[in-house]
Amino acid sequence: MSSPLLDHLIEALRCLPGVGQKSAQRMAYHLLERGREGGLKLSAALAEAIERIGHCELCRDFSEEKICAICASNSRERSLLCAVESPADRLVIEQATGYRGRYFVLQGRLSPLDGIGPRELGLDRLATRLADGEVKELIIATNPTVEGEATAHYLAQLARQFDVHPSRLAHGVPLGGELEYVDRGTLAHAFGSRIEVER
Amino acid sequence: MSSPLLDHLIEALRCLPGVGQKSAQRMAYHLLERGREGGLKLSAALAEAIERIGHCELCRDFSEEKICAICASNSRERSLLCAVESPADRLVIEQATGYRGRYFVLQGRLSPLDGIGPRELGLDRLATRLADGEVKELIIATNPTVEGEATAHYLAQLARQFDVHPSRLAHGVPLGGELEYVDRGTLAHAFGSRIEVER
Repeated sequence: MSSPLLDHLIEALRCLPGVGQKSAQRMAYHLLERGREGGLKLSAALAEAIERIGHCELCRDFSEEKICAICASNSRERSLLCAVESPADRLVIEQATGYRGRYFVLQGRLSPLDGIGPRELGLDRLATRLADGEVKELIIATNPTVEGEATAHYLAQLARQFDVHPSRLAHGVPLGGELEYVDRGTLAHAFGSRIEVER
Repeated sequence: MSSPLLDHLIEALRCLPGVGQKSAQRMAYHLLERGREGGLKLSAALAEAIERIGHCELCRDFSEEKICAICASNSRERSLLCAVESPADRLVIEQATGYRGRYFVLQGRLSPLDGIGPRELGLDRLATRLADGEVKELIIATNPTVEGEATAHYLAQLARQFDVHPSRLAHGVPLGGELEYVDRGTLAHAFGSRIEVER
């Protein structure tokens, strides 16, 4: 018995991650009551982003240009390449670390059962980049999941083919974490790969 | 160093209630990675809703028609009118109760300090409706806040002017709630307005 356009908007809002029926209702009412201007801006930004944002030809990250800003930058170390699964992973590394090299965004991970193989991850393009001799180290920053590990293994082998040194993010107890609450796998790994205390 | 259009989208998503920087990022990446179709639909639904949804001339609820579906319906009791603060309140009453009367949506509550008086709540229009003699009972369903109570008091007086019987939602201990966790004000009210147990 509500307005059909309003129902339609609520339904459409549910495409957002983590937004169910209740949140979508709240968002729709909020936008109509107090945020019409912001809503119009959002509508335009959404349409423009979806229409114009594609993938960088070099690193496969999101970009509205053929080559993204990081790949096009001259101040980035050309000898370092960091492979990540998603643009979101690239963003957190960029924000949290002082990394000044470049990236390669796989846009996924190897998962043969889902039909995601080397081609889908653009590994032919990665091979071309590794082949030209500019890259000296491939930092593999895939997620520590089964598929992420398999992907990392594959990437490491690929790097070695082209005499590129592969490296992985260190695993272990998170900073500020309490041992009591660290999961068993992580703790076992951290224990096994303990490091000698320097003098 | 990210894509400007992507930054713009993330910023625009923050107009949604309860969405901060992190959630906005997650939403933007999700839409670009896996939800482009849904995103385009959302953009269109948003623009259309904001452009075309106005207020019903009778009840002030959201509606793309001059008169909303509930006000236009012939199967609704004409002698009952329920005053609520917002369209969201109307929706929950519609969903939770078997109410078959009509509504009046104040789109706010009396708040003189914020410049919200009877005129802003459309009480002149409410008075016209009460004056024509069709409405016999005005169910006042404002929120149990200070301003909501003040609004309720004002509405009750208005109703009496036109010989309309005002009523309010019952206050008390929520069903399924435990006394231990009910706030003091509610408990005191429920205690004071205790009801004799029927035989």
